[in-house]
Amino acid sequence: MSTELETSLPSVRQVQTLIKDGNEVELKLVTGDLLTGKVRWQDPFCICLLDHYDQPTVIWRSALVYMKPKQL
Amino acid sequence: MSTELETSLPSVRQVQTLIKDGNEVELKLVTGDLLTGKVRWQDPFCICLLDHYDQPTVIWRSALVYMKPKQL
Amino acid sequence: MSTELETSLPSVRQVQTLIKDGNEVELKLVTGDLLTGKVRWQDPFCICLLDHYDQPTVIWRSALVYMKPKQL
Amino acid sequence: MSTELETSLPSVRQVQTLIKDGNEVELKLVTGDLLTGKVRWQDPFCICLLDHYDQPTVIWRSALVYMKPKQL
Amino acid sequence: MSTELETSLPSVRQVQTLIKDGNEVELKLVTGDLLTGKVRWQDPFCICLLDHYDQPTVIWRSALVYMKPKQL
Amino acid sequence: MSTELETSLPSVRQVQTLIKDGNEVELKLVTGDLLTGKVRWQDPFCICLLDHYDQPTVIWRSALVYMKPKQL
Repeated sequence: MSTELETSLPSVRQVQTLIKDGNEVELKLVTGDLLTGKVRWQDPFCICLLDHYDQPTVIWRSALVYMKPKQL
Repeated sequence: MSTELETSLPSVRQVQTLIKDGNEVELKLVTGDLLTGKVRWQDPFCICLLDHYDQPTVIWRSALVYMKPKQL
Repeated sequence: MSTELETSLPSVRQVQTLIKDGNEVELKLVTGDLLTGKVRWQDPFCICLLDHYDQPTVIWRSALVYMKPKQL
Repeated sequence: MSTELETSLPSVRQVQTLIKDGNEVELKLVTGDLLTGKVRWQDPFCICLLDHYDQPTVIWRSALVYMKPKQL
Repeated sequence: MSTELETSLPSVRQVQTLIKDGNEVELKLVTGDLLTGKVRWQDPFCICLLDHYDQPTVIWRSALVYMKPKQL
Repeated sequence: MSTELETSLPSVRQVQTLIKDGNEVELKLVTGDLLTGKVRWQDPFCICLLDHYDQPTVIWRSALVYMKPKQL
């Protein structure tokens, strides 16, 4: 994997939009955990999620399964 | 993995056809989850699925196990 | 992984032979699923299996565990 | 993966800050294990965690799921 | 991964010796399965195991956990 | 992954020290197995562990989760 994110790719852009708009997401991980929060940043290895108390969780991309808008 | 999809490959073309035709698929994931929906887009890292309410789920390729036509 | 299959490798040739001969195989996946069918095609990312109703299942290579001749 | 860490990436810098500051973290692993400790070093393949008895645990990056500040 | 095996590496040579000597091994897989048999061939993607009935099982390297001499 | 180990990396050097000193380690694997023994050799794909009967177990790096000194 390159150490630069291809901002032209839909998957990269979608995460950038989420960071800008601050909408909440649900992230399913390989362990079966389902995390909820706002995406703060992404880089080629990780995605950072902020929970309701603004605590950051750094998630490795290799552990990501899916991401979707938080169900209201 | 290159950041361009090789559209000559059967697996890439098959997903492109699904996007164009809008047929529903079942996607099995490494967590054992089975998601159902229509494929909206693909890029080298992810596949995006739309559920019955048109809510998008972005799925990482590393988490994909198999894909088949939805059983009627 | 290159986007061309090295047809000189035993593992690639063995799958090619299965496609040509149409013999049934059992495929074990990382989820523990055991699929049965005939191999229709392979590319660098996926293998496609046809079940008894000729329904195709596209399986990602990253999810493959083992393949063996179907037990009679 | 290159054998040099890109210190300009947020995920790499965040771990460097943790090493310098000595704050405790929780590390979730693909096995479901949750390890607690201080990060001692990182390299492109592993992260080393020190537990309360200063015993080192070398963790492979491929097994990392998420990292967050230890809950007080 | 290159499409040629580095025969100078201990892990590659050890498997080559097993093929030549025909000793039985136990192979643990990511699914938790423990397979027993003789190694017939290896290539950069797979290892082929023969069971007691000389039936071949092609195992993907990504699914390998450990290999040891069969306990007598 | 290159087919040469970067001996300047802490994770590689730490394993080299373990080989030289012959101290026992605990190795956690993706299957949840916890193996105990002395490290005999490493290469870019595998690590070899010797148990109390000097039986070798070849472990694939992709299956490694963590390594720590054996608890006395």
